[in-house]
Amino acid sequence: MAEKLKLTILGRGASLPSKTSNQSAQILGMHNKLMLIDCGEGTQNAIRQLDVALARLNHIFISHLHGDHLLGLPGLLSTLGMLGRKGALCLYGHAPLEKYIQQQIEFFGEDFGYPIEFHPIDPFHESVIYEDKAMKVTAFPLKHSIPCNGFVFEEKPKPLHLNRAKADAYNVPTSQYLNIKNGMDYVTPEGIVIPNKELTLPADESKKYAYCSDTAYNEKIIPYIEGADCLFHEATFHSQHKLRAKETQHSTAQQAAEIARKAKVKRLIIGHVSARYCDYTPLLEEAKAIFENTEMAEEKKSYWF
Amino acid sequence: MAEKLKLTILGRGASLPSKTSNQSAQILGMHNKLMLIDCGEGTQNAIRQLDVALARLNHIFISHLHGDHLLGLPGLLSTLGMLGRKGALCLYGHAPLEKYIQQQIEFFGEDFGYPIEFHPIDPFHESVIYEDKAMKVTAFPLKHSIPCNGFVFEEKPKPLHLNRAKADAYNVPTSQYLNIKNGMDYVTPEGIVIPNKELTLPADESKKYAYCSDTAYNEKIIPYIEGADCLFHEATFHSQHKLRAKETQHSTAQQAAEIARKAKVKRLIIGHVSARYCDYTPLLEEAKAIFENTEMAEEKKSYWF
Repeated sequence: MAEKLKLTILGRGASLPSKTSNQSAQILGMHNKLMLIDCGEGTQNAIRQLDVALARLNHIFISHLHGDHLLGLPGLLSTLGMLGRKGALCLYGHAPLEKYIQQQIEFFGEDFGYPIEFHPIDPFHESVIYEDKAMKVTAFPLKHSIPCNGFVFEEKPKPLHLNRAKADAYNVPTSQYLNIKNGMDYVTPEGIVIPNKELTLPADESKKYAYCSDTAYNEKIIPYIEGADCLFHEATFHSQHKLRAKETQHSTAQQAAEIARKAKVKRLIIGHVSARYCDYTPLLEEAKAIFENTEMAEEKKSYWF
Repeated sequence: MAEKLKLTILGRGASLPSKTSNQSAQILGMHNKLMLIDCGEGTQNAIRQLDVALARLNHIFISHLHGDHLLGLPGLLSTLGMLGRKGALCLYGHAPLEKYIQQQIEFFGEDFGYPIEFHPIDPFHESVIYEDKAMKVTAFPLKHSIPCNGFVFEEKPKPLHLNRAKADAYNVPTSQYLNIKNGMDYVTPEGIVIPNKELTLPADESKKYAYCSDTAYNEKIIPYIEGADCLFHEATFHSQHKLRAKETQHSTAQQAAEIARKAKVKRLIIGHVSARYCDYTPLLEEAKAIFENTEMAEEKKSYWF
């Protein structure tokens, strides 16, 4: 069975923390990697409470330079050092973030004890910011009061499954299995071509996770997030505060659901909810009316897809 | 009855947050004022969870410039602005803290929406850093790896209580009550002097709270904290890690209790406990063996004295 992605919400609140919601942060587990997406204040506390395997955390992505998305960074980076980290940590964010981290180091008079590789993100154009054999991460522009990026984490196409019974029937040597899984036909010693289709079963689907926070309603993001297995989209306001959402360049829960519907994603998680709401039910309800498979982000809960 | 002081622990942990303990921060309620003492990451979250009356928070005291005592400041200061604060906030700390706050303002591109009055503390000498009619705050040097201050919050001597029955018996006019409470004798229209002692009952005792974090064992602090109604003293380590305590210029629980005993305080709260301990009982036990009236700080608990 295909390995699932695991998304853990560390903070589902907006800029003001509330009794029930911390500031933005989430961890995506993908291909034995842990990736932190945004890092609001208190992220390291949540991480410690959840026993996250910090040795596997090598990538941190910061969507934009508002405090509620990054004020947890200095403490977390320092804690990783105290816990004995030596390996490089990759940090992805807008250019000024590098200076911010440098200022922290200068103020506290010592570095973190391990190197930080800073990867600046172009906030205005789509760009692949991380890539390896199995997956890639793409940043794309959102529409907010300051430059802000969404991220798409997606697996690359996976190898086909070998149809073992057929391979045995054609006496395919094991040395050819990898080629066949990668789509090649098999040629028998007698020169007979066995088409790849005959020897394989379809590959597992490649998974895609899209993260959109913070953003006004913006249909331009649809091509990036289209068909995602899971979309996190901010829903700072209920539609009764639609004007306030527009003024502050945030979305309502209804608008988040509208984007999910139009982008034909499989599942929507909404969050980044304003501290003005004690009861999140009306936000969830208005989203579900438009896109049924919507969930309200729960703090410290993990979602598999 | 005399008004009591109220101390609320927001974080009782040391530099690494753990499952049960956040970084240093506490709130002292005194004379209708709220004063924040240290501000580790997550302080604003705890404050919001406890429904602290932020309008009464006008003074923040930072003991030293280690991250676990101040990384919550940028978020808290920003949140106060978002909540509509307009009045000045007084911030007390070592000189470089002012620059740190200024850098935050520059990075995020806007001030907090209200003025911050920065009061630099001399880390090497005792000094009164706040004073009003009813109370004063004194900073004094601790012994740590970087300059670090303890704080004493104390009420000034209080007025005597009027012995109402006696005052009536001598026909003292109400216009003289304040003078008598302040220690003056009363002279009757006939010129007879009624000694103050005859007309008054003893004043309420003035309360004193002492905060000592972070510090190695240091008897030089005793004169400052002597007789405190409540002493918070760091106890980062159990005495089995006495050498580690010495190396890092922290105290063991036993040493904290020794200081409490020698300073003849009335009550000791220990905290700033290292994340290496899952069970705090042995620390509390070794402290109680030396100073019986010791408590382990509990997160989000309030202590009255």
